[in-house]
Amino acid sequence: MDKLYPPIYYSDYLQLSKLLSSQKPKSNEYGKPAHDEMLFIVVHQVYELWFKLILHELDLVLKMFREEVIDEKNIGVAVAKIQRITEIEKILIDQLRVLETMTPLDFLDFRDFLFPASGFQSYQFRLIENKVGLKSENRIQYSNADYFNTLSLEHRKLILESMENLSLFELVEKWLERTPFLNFEDFNFWDVYKTTVEQMLDGERQVILENKTFSEEKMENQLRQNAVTKEHFEALFNEDKYNELKRKGVSRLSMKATLAALFINLYRDEPILHMPFMLLNTILEMDELFTTWRYRHVLMVHRMIGSKLGTGGSSGHAYLMQTVEKHRVFIDLFNLSTYFVSRSTLPELPYKLKKELGFYYSSQL
Amino acid sequence: MDKLYPPIYYSDYLQLSKLLSSQKPKSNEYGKPAHDEMLFIVVHQVYELWFKLILHELDLVLKMFREEVIDEKNIGVAVAKIQRITEIEKILIDQLRVLETMTPLDFLDFRDFLFPASGFQSYQFRLIENKVGLKSENRIQYSNADYFNTLSLEHRKLILESMENLSLFELVEKWLERTPFLNFEDFNFWDVYKTTVEQMLDGERQVILENKTFSEEKMENQLRQNAVTKEHFEALFNEDKYNELKRKGVSRLSMKATLAALFINLYRDEPILHMPFMLLNTILEMDELFTTWRYRHVLMVHRMIGSKLGTGGSSGHAYLMQTVEKHRVFIDLFNLSTYFVSRSTLPELPYKLKKELGFYYSSQL
Amino acid sequence: MDKLYPPIYYSDYLQLSKLLSSQKPKSNEYGKPAHDEMLFIVVHQVYELWFKLILHELDLVLKMFREEVIDEKNIGVAVAKIQRITEIEKILIDQLRVLETMTPLDFLDFRDFLFPASGFQSYQFRLIENKVGLKSENRIQYSNADYFNTLSLEHRKLILESMENLSLFELVEKWLERTPFLNFEDFNFWDVYKTTVEQMLDGERQVILENKTFSEEKMENQLRQNAVTKEHFEALFNEDKYNELKRKGVSRLSMKATLAALFINLYRDEPILHMPFMLLNTILEMDELFTTWRYRHVLMVHRMIGSKLGTGGSSGHAYLMQTVEKHRVFIDLFNLSTYFVSRSTLPELPYKLKKELGFYYSSQL
Amino acid sequence: MDKLYPPIYYSDYLQLSKLLSSQKPKSNEYGKPAHDEMLFIVVHQVYELWFKLILHELDLVLKMFREEVIDEKNIGVAVAKIQRITEIEKILIDQLRVLETMTPLDFLDFRDFLFPASGFQSYQFRLIENKVGLKSENRIQYSNADYFNTLSLEHRKLILESMENLSLFELVEKWLERTPFLNFEDFNFWDVYKTTVEQMLDGERQVILENKTFSEEKMENQLRQNAVTKEHFEALFNEDKYNELKRKGVSRLSMKATLAALFINLYRDEPILHMPFMLLNTILEMDELFTTWRYRHVLMVHRMIGSKLGTGGSSGHAYLMQTVEKHRVFIDLFNLSTYFVSRSTLPELPYKLKKELGFYYSSQL
Repeated sequence: MDKLYPPIYYSDYLQLSKLLSSQKPKSNEYGKPAHDEMLFIVVHQVYELWFKLILHELDLVLKMFREEVIDEKNIGVAVAKIQRITEIEKILIDQLRVLETMTPLDFLDFRDFLFPASGFQSYQFRLIENKVGLKSENRIQYSNADYFNTLSLEHRKLILESMENLSLFELVEKWLERTPFLNFEDFNFWDVYKTTVEQMLDGERQVILENKTFSEEKMENQLRQNAVTKEHFEALFNEDKYNELKRKGVSRLSMKATLAALFINLYRDEPILHMPFMLLNTILEMDELFTTWRYRHVLMVHRMIGSKLGTGGSSGHAYLMQTVEKHRVFIDLFNLSTYFVSRSTLPELPYKLKKELGFYYSSQL
Repeated sequence: MDKLYPPIYYSDYLQLSKLLSSQKPKSNEYGKPAHDEMLFIVVHQVYELWFKLILHELDLVLKMFREEVIDEKNIGVAVAKIQRITEIEKILIDQLRVLETMTPLDFLDFRDFLFPASGFQSYQFRLIENKVGLKSENRIQYSNADYFNTLSLEHRKLILESMENLSLFELVEKWLERTPFLNFEDFNFWDVYKTTVEQMLDGERQVILENKTFSEEKMENQLRQNAVTKEHFEALFNEDKYNELKRKGVSRLSMKATLAALFINLYRDEPILHMPFMLLNTILEMDELFTTWRYRHVLMVHRMIGSKLGTGGSSGHAYLMQTVEKHRVFIDLFNLSTYFVSRSTLPELPYKLKKELGFYYSSQL
Repeated sequence: MDKLYPPIYYSDYLQLSKLLSSQKPKSNEYGKPAHDEMLFIVVHQVYELWFKLILHELDLVLKMFREEVIDEKNIGVAVAKIQRITEIEKILIDQLRVLETMTPLDFLDFRDFLFPASGFQSYQFRLIENKVGLKSENRIQYSNADYFNTLSLEHRKLILESMENLSLFELVEKWLERTPFLNFEDFNFWDVYKTTVEQMLDGERQVILENKTFSEEKMENQLRQNAVTKEHFEALFNEDKYNELKRKGVSRLSMKATLAALFINLYRDEPILHMPFMLLNTILEMDELFTTWRYRHVLMVHRMIGSKLGTGGSSGHAYLMQTVEKHRVFIDLFNLSTYFVSRSTLPELPYKLKKELGFYYSSQL
Repeated sequence: MDKLYPPIYYSDYLQLSKLLSSQKPKSNEYGKPAHDEMLFIVVHQVYELWFKLILHELDLVLKMFREEVIDEKNIGVAVAKIQRITEIEKILIDQLRVLETMTPLDFLDFRDFLFPASGFQSYQFRLIENKVGLKSENRIQYSNADYFNTLSLEHRKLILESMENLSLFELVEKWLERTPFLNFEDFNFWDVYKTTVEQMLDGERQVILENKTFSEEKMENQLRQNAVTKEHFEALFNEDKYNELKRKGVSRLSMKATLAALFINLYRDEPILHMPFMLLNTILEMDELFTTWRYRHVLMVHRMIGSKLGTGGSSGHAYLMQTVEKHRVFIDLFNLSTYFVSRSTLPELPYKLKKELGFYYSSQL
C-alpha cells in the first residue's frame, strides 16, 4: 500500500442506493401488484449488468486487435478475457432456471402492462452481436421490422457507431491473414497436406464403395457427399472456387485466413502456436455458448407465452428459433475440423520456420 | 437393523472388477495408442449408465400410470422420479463439457477405428424416446435409413417391445381424459372461460389496430396472427376443428386431455390440483432438457467432425439439427400457455367440485 | 388484455440509464485504471440484485407464516418461492467462477483503493441471515468486532428491525408446534415408534459387538456412540433431557416442533403431508446451498488474498471458515434423519387421523 | 482413413452387455426390493468410472513430469489434461444433486444390507489422493482405523505401489526447483522484491496505526497479524526460518520451489511464463474443486444419515468434515498470493534472462 486512500463504504462503492431503488414494478404502479414482477425485473437487470461486463471485455480485446502488431502477451490477455466472457455466458444460460421458476400464469398477471417492451430492445445485446461480428444480412428481422426502429435515438446512435468499427470477426480475420508462415520458401507444407487429404478422401470413398450393408440409395447419397467434401477441399487452394463458396454463404472467412486457422489447429502442439490455438478455440467456445443461450431462451419463451404475440408484438417462438442458427458468427471455425488430417500424417515443421514463428509471435525474444 | 446381513465389500457390491475392465481402446488393439480414446469410452459408458437409470425410473412411472385408478400418493412418487430424471438430464448436458476437452484433432487419432459404430446405435436412448412417446413418424431418419436396421437382433427385439406398450405420452393423455371435472353439472366454467378468452383476444386486436408505429405490412401480419390464435382457441371447443389441428400436426394431445391439462394449470393453486400441476410441469421440464441436450450434442458433433461423415456414416450435423425440434414429445404442454387467461378473470371453483376433485385425487380421505 | 396501457420502452422499464451508470471504478478516479475493477464491481452488484430478490421472496414467505392459520394453498406458494431462492443460490455459487477469472495479481492493481470496504458490509446479506434465523450468538464476529458497527446508521436501523420480527426459523417452529396430530386419542404412534427405535439401536449394538474385525479401541468407541444416539433418542420423549440438549447447542428446535417435523418426514407419502414435507425439504436445501456458498466463498478469498488482511481489515480466510459451519440455521433438519426408522416398521395411520390432518391442512375442503 | 478396419458395433465397443448387467441390488437378493437402490448403485458406478478417467489423465501427467527435462509442449499437454480433470470434478460435484433426489427415508429401505461397505473403500479415490500428493500424516483416519485395513489385499497392493512413486506434488516441486532463473547473475530481482514487500507491509502497518475507528483490542490484533505476515515473508529468504514453517505445517513446498512459483506468478504475463503459470493455476483449481467436492459430500452424508454410524461404521459427518480442510494438497499455492506485490512495483526482467527462460522452456527454438 503506497499511501492511505480515503476510506470507502461498501454500499457507496457499489452505488447500492441507486441500484436497489431501480426496481419499479408496473403492476404496483397500476394498483394490481403482481409478486413475480420483481423477479422479472431483477433477472433482466442482472442480464444487462452481465452484458455491460461482456462489452467491457470485448472492447479491450477489440482495442488490442486493432494494433498493427499484436505481441503474444496480448494474445494471452485476449484469451483470458474471452474465457471470462464464456464463464459469464454459462451464467446467462443457467440463470434462465431462475426465470423459469415463474410460471406462465404468474407472468400473465403483469404481462399486459409491459407492452411493447421486449428483450429485442436490449441495445447492449445488439452491440455485443455487432462487435462480435454478426452481419446485418444474417440478422433475422423480427415482426417484419428491423430491431433498429424500435430503439430510442440515443441507442440507435450507439448501434451505428458499433457498425462503423471492425468487428472481432474482421479483426481476427486480418490477424490470421498476417501470420507469416503462409508463404515460406521451399517448405512444401501445403503440397504434402493436399496429397494427404486426397488420400484420406479417396480412402473414405473406398470405405463407402465396399460397404455391403448400404442400400443403393444410401450408397449414392454417401458418394455424393464425399464428392462435395472433396470439392470444398479443393476450394481451399483455388481462389475462384473459394470465392464461390463465400458467395453461397458456406464460408465467410477469407481463404487466406482459413488456411492460417487450419495451420494453427494442425500444429497447435508447437509451444509457439499454443496461444494462437487457444484464442481460436476460446472464440469458438464463446460462439457455441451464445447460440446455446439463444436456444434455451427460445424454449423458455415458447413455454412462457406459447404461440401468442411476444410483448414486443413479435411472433415469439418462431422468430427466435430462426435466429439460433443464423446468428452464429464463427461458423467457419466449427467447419474447420472438416479439413483436419491425422497428426501422424502431418509433415514436421522445419527448424527455420519454427524460429520465424517464434520471432513473429513473441517479438521480445 | 433387524438382523445382521453378510458383510459387503464396496468393490464387490459395485462389481468394480467388471466395470473397470470394460474399457478396451481400439487404438491400443491396433498398436496405435491414442490417449484420448479412454475419455471417449468412459464418457459414453457414463451416458449409458445414466440411460439405464432413466429407464429404471421411467418404467416405474409407466407401471403406476397403467393402473386403472392412480391415487395421489403415486402422483407424488411419479413427480419425484421424473424430477430425478431431470437432474440426470442436467448432468447429461453438463458432461458434454468433459467430452469437449477432447479436440477434433485428438479425436482423429482413433476415429477411423470406430467405423461404423455411432451414438445412433444407443438402443437404450431409443428405448427412452419410445417410452416417453416419440412417434415413429416424427423420428428423423439418419443417412436415409431407419436407425432400427443398424441395431443387433437382440436390441431390435427390445425396441419392438417398447413400441407395443403405451408410452408416457399416451398414459398421461388417458389419465388427463379421466379427470372428473370435465363434465360437472351446472358449473359453467368453460362458458366463462370462452367469454374471457374472446374478450382477451378482441383486446389484443384492438391494441394492434391502435398501434400507430406499425407499418401497414406489420399491421396485417399481426392481425392475421391474432385471427389464427382465435381459430386455435375455438378449436378447443369444437371437435371437428380440433381434429383438423391434430391432422396438421399442430396438436397431438386429444381435445379432452388438452382441456384437462388447461384446467389443471389454471387452477393449480388449489391444493388438490397441486400435484397434478407439478406432474405436468415436471414432464415439460424433462422434455425441455432432452431437447436442450440434443441441441448441445449437435453443436458438439459439428465442432468435432465439421461437415464430414459421422462415424456411423451419417451426415452428422445436418441430420442432428432436424431431430432437435422434431423429437420434442410434449409440444402440447409448451403450447398450452397460449390458452392461459389471467387468474383474476377466472371463476371461483364451486365447493362441490372441489370436494369431488378431493375424492378423485386422494381417494383415501 | 383489459385495456391499453401506456407503451413502455425496455430500457426505461429496467431503468438502464441509472443501472448502467452505477459503475465507478476507483482506479479510474485515482488515475491508475485497472481493467478488472469493472468485473469486481459488476459481480458484486449482481450479488446485491440477487440478494434483493431473495429478500423479496423471503418477505412473502414470512408474511404468510405470520398468519394464525396457514392454509395449504400458501404452503404451496411458500415451497415455490423457497425453491426459487434455491435456484438463485445455485447461481450465487456458480458465478464465483466468473470472479475467479480475476487473478490475485489483477486484484492487487486496485485492492488498496477499496479499504476498508468489504463484503462483510453487505447489509442485505445480513438481513437475509437474520430473517432466515441466524442467532446473534452463533454469528462469528470478524476482526474482533461486530459486523454491526461497520454499517451506516441507515443500514443499522434496517438490521435492528429485522431482528425485532420472528425469523423463518421461529415461524416454522411455531407452525410445526401447531400441527394437530401430536396429541390424538388412542393412536399410540409414539409408543410404537419408541419401541421400533429401541429395537433398531439394540440391533446396531449387536452388530457392533459381533464384529470381529474391530479393535478393542474401535469397539469401545462404537459402543459409546451407540449409547449417545440412544440418549438423544430418549431426549425426544423427555422434556428435561431435551432441554439439556438445547442448552448444549446440540438442538435448537423445540421438542414439540422436532416431533412434528419427524412425523411429517416419516409419513411424507401421505398426500396430505406431501406439501409440508416439501416445505421442510426445500428449507433444508436452501440452508445447504447457503453453507456451500459460504464455503466456496472462503476458498475464493483464500486464493485471492492468501493469509493477508481482507480489505475490511478482517483476517479473511480464518474468520470465514468458522462461519461456514456456525452459520447453518436449520441444523435440526439435517440431524433429523438420525431418528428415522424404516417405513416397513411404521404403524399405519388411522383413518380418523388422516381425515383430521386433511381438514387441518386444507381447510377449504 | 488409411485402411478399412473391421466394423464395430456401438454396444460391443462399449461392452454394454457387461456394463449394464453389473447392477445387482441387494434388496432384490434379500426379497425386499427397494426401488432407489438402483440409483445408489449407478451413481457410485459413475463415480468410479470418472475416477478411472482421472487416474488415466493423472498417470500421463506424472509420466511426463518424471522426465529429466520437460519441454513446453508437454507443459501444454499437462495443462490440458488437468483442465480435463477439473471439468470432471465439476460433474462429480453436480451429480451429488442426482443422489440427493433420494431421501434419507428411501435410503433406509436398503441401508442395512450394505454394511460395512462404504465410500471410504473406494481404492481408486485413495489412489487419486496419493498420486496428487496427500501425505499419510495429513490423512484423517476414520473410525479410529486406517482406511487401508478395510481394503482387500489386491487393492492394498495398488495403494502401496502408488505410495512408492513420486506424487504430483513432489514432481511439481522438483520441476519448480529446477527452473533456471533462481540464481542469475547481476539481476537483483529478489533484492528489489524484498524492499518492495517491506515497504508494502510497513504501509499496511501505518494504515492500521492511523485507523481511528479501531478499538485498542482490534488495533493490537491487527498489528500482531501484520508482524506475523512480515515474519512469513522474511522466512522466504531465510532457510532456517523457512524450515521452521515447514516443521509447523504452515508450508509444505520447499523454499526454492516456493520462490520459483512466486516468480512465475509475478511474471506470468511474459509469454514464456504463460504455460508454467497456467499449470500452477490449473493445479490450484483442481485442488479447490476436490475440496469443494469433499465439502458437498459431507453435507450430503449429514443430511442422509444424520449423526448415525455410516455404513462403514464411521461416525460419518464429524469425520468427513475434518478431511475437507486437511486433505487439501496444494495449500502453498493458495497461500502464495500473500506474497504478491503490485505489478507496477515489479522490476522489468532483463533481456538476457528472458532469453534464458525462452531456451529453458521451449528448447526446440
